[in-house]
Amino acid sequence: MNDSEALVSTFEEGEVGIVAHSDFVSKVPFEFESGGVVPGLCLRYETYGHLNKDKSNAILICHALTGDHHCAGVYDMTERKQGWWNFMVGPGKPIDTKKYFVICSNVLGGCNGSTGPRSINPETGKPYNLDFPKLTVRDMVRAQALLIDSLGLDRLHAVIGGSMGGMQTLQWAIDFPERLGRYAALACCARHNAQAIAFNDTGRQAIMRDPAWKKGVYASDAPPAHGLAVARMMAHITYLSDAGMEARFGRKRRAEDSSREHFEVEFEVESYLRYQGQQFVSRFDANSYLYLTKALDRFDLHGSDGRLDEMLKAVQAPGLVVGFGSDWLYPPQANREIVEALLRLGKPASYAELALNAGHDSFLLRAPKLDALIRTFLDR
Amino acid sequence: MNDSEALVSTFEEGEVGIVAHSDFVSKVPFEFESGGVVPGLCLRYETYGHLNKDKSNAILICHALTGDHHCAGVYDMTERKQGWWNFMVGPGKPIDTKKYFVICSNVLGGCNGSTGPRSINPETGKPYNLDFPKLTVRDMVRAQALLIDSLGLDRLHAVIGGSMGGMQTLQWAIDFPERLGRYAALACCARHNAQAIAFNDTGRQAIMRDPAWKKGVYASDAPPAHGLAVARMMAHITYLSDAGMEARFGRKRRAEDSSREHFEVEFEVESYLRYQGQQFVSRFDANSYLYLTKALDRFDLHGSDGRLDEMLKAVQAPGLVVGFGSDWLYPPQANREIVEALLRLGKPASYAELALNAGHDSFLLRAPKLDALIRTFLDR
Repeated sequence: MNDSEALVSTFEEGEVGIVAHSDFVSKVPFEFESGGVVPGLCLRYETYGHLNKDKSNAILICHALTGDHHCAGVYDMTERKQGWWNFMVGPGKPIDTKKYFVICSNVLGGCNGSTGPRSINPETGKPYNLDFPKLTVRDMVRAQALLIDSLGLDRLHAVIGGSMGGMQTLQWAIDFPERLGRYAALACCARHNAQAIAFNDTGRQAIMRDPAWKKGVYASDAPPAHGLAVARMMAHITYLSDAGMEARFGRKRRAEDSSREHFEVEFEVESYLRYQGQQFVSRFDANSYLYLTKALDRFDLHGSDGRLDEMLKAVQAPGLVVGFGSDWLYPPQANREIVEALLRLGKPASYAELALNAGHDSFLLRAPKLDALIRTFLDR
Repeated sequence: MNDSEALVSTFEEGEVGIVAHSDFVSKVPFEFESGGVVPGLCLRYETYGHLNKDKSNAILICHALTGDHHCAGVYDMTERKQGWWNFMVGPGKPIDTKKYFVICSNVLGGCNGSTGPRSINPETGKPYNLDFPKLTVRDMVRAQALLIDSLGLDRLHAVIGGSMGGMQTLQWAIDFPERLGRYAALACCARHNAQAIAFNDTGRQAIMRDPAWKKGVYASDAPPAHGLAVARMMAHITYLSDAGMEARFGRKRRAEDSSREHFEVEFEVESYLRYQGQQFVSRFDANSYLYLTKALDRFDLHGSDGRLDEMLKAVQAPGLVVGFGSDWLYPPQANREIVEALLRLGKPASYAELALNAGHDSFLLRAPKLDALIRTFLDR
């Protein structure tokens, strides 16, 4: 038995193991909510577990802003990094792949295999860049529905996601009320407040003011890396909590003192954030970041007339919304108000608030309470 | 009587009126805390009101990161913008220029007339840029003390300031305990936490990753404007409160919808922030921003061994520290812990917390409660 076999064997007991992605390709023109059209689209996705005979055990996972379709397992034995929700998805895990057939796709507008601003426009042979239509969360969900159709699924056991994934989840419950059995939105909100828009626009300005951005028409090997790194650094701070950062980094220092000022890394937290910014550049596209953050800013379940209840009327399935106490980007109240509106409408909905200290990113970190909450909600 | 005279007359009743700055110039080498030396220095300053005969009515105001020496009045009748603390300083105002002789100087390391990274190094005939020594809040205060000496003042009635100005105020109370009668630090902290350092370093990265920065050696007419604007936009969000932004901007929109994505201003808050970023570039120097934010990050009254009480032992004068409920950058607790330590040491100190909703910037906005607090503290 070689090392690889040993690892596969381990995977079989509690891990998803080695996975591969698939591409759903549609040649039918897709019209965006804004009226813009693309001649076709591709959604890259992964599945875990097996569809049962009556096709009643499918769960769709929606990823957050900078996530992708790779939510569990590894691509090969040399890869050390597992999917972004690996602790949640797998045999015996809260989203149990021994019971459920799990699907996760890269969003429309993304940059990890699905059609997005940097995809080639078949009509011009060049990337769409800013010719890509204005994008909304509803567009993402409608594209996902085409993928679900293509898999022969009329109905999903559940839709689940955090942050932007939570917005997609809510949109699924509104736009396809009869196609899902339940839904769970984590660290979510019905709409961005001014502060969230402000942070996003500052990130966009960092990208768009980078001379390498060139109004979106940059070469693939010369992206606006500086702007994107800065946008990520800033956004990353908003995903963490004050207390969480203090516990992890505090004022721990790296560098030696000298009378000369170099502005190199001095505090640990600087090193961490600069690394996060740098890593992000290697895995994410700047135009995609612009489009996706705009979709987040425009998402508004209150609608232009501020009537959240009106928008949620269509929902039928029972829902769970989870807020995290230390999340200051989409704070507990922004999650709670969704459930309050659902309950006013007589819809079956629950709100849970977890006192985890990882801020907005709490849904991405393993916690027994979160595990139990999701497992019970999906299995009940 | 022409229009100018009419205005001067109005000023005499309740306004500081037209002011002019002065320059304090020292040709004596100044050694920084880091060991670095400059061959001399200049501090630009303004004064308001008159020094009394026994020289007992002088108040020093310390400005915040992006403030300057111009804290009250106007430079000429055509100028519409008054000094940054005009509501606080003037005849009959809380810092009453009918009673007090008020001094405000641009900090060492600044860019509004005082010696800073963009000043000409007399030894090379070129700007210091990154040859400017590492800067601390203590350096700023020691330079201010030279100015106070030059004005023939042994002792100040009070030192007062907010944010970085509050740090200077505390440093005055520690380093020159016998030279001040009282001190008031507003929206302050004993040291930055990891989150505050993270925001500052992201701002610095925005500047340093701007190709125009050129390792600090940029032409005066070609500064790293994009990076500086982005740094300011981000920092500005941290100076406001979530609730304050929501009340002022919410999701108010500017632009018309279209299917094409332009990433131009769509929400009011974007317009406001982009304007703030742009304005800042015209009045602030990027290298100075780097040096001053570093001084903020390094300020640490807990010291390397975490003993706040030890550092505050030297304080003699009675102090007032004011926290603002909506300030999440230097939250109330960060202010309160300073007074708690002072009280443990048996020092005369008071803590006040004002429930204003302008966030960290609350000390820069007029509020009757703040007025009364400062007036009473100075006059008692």
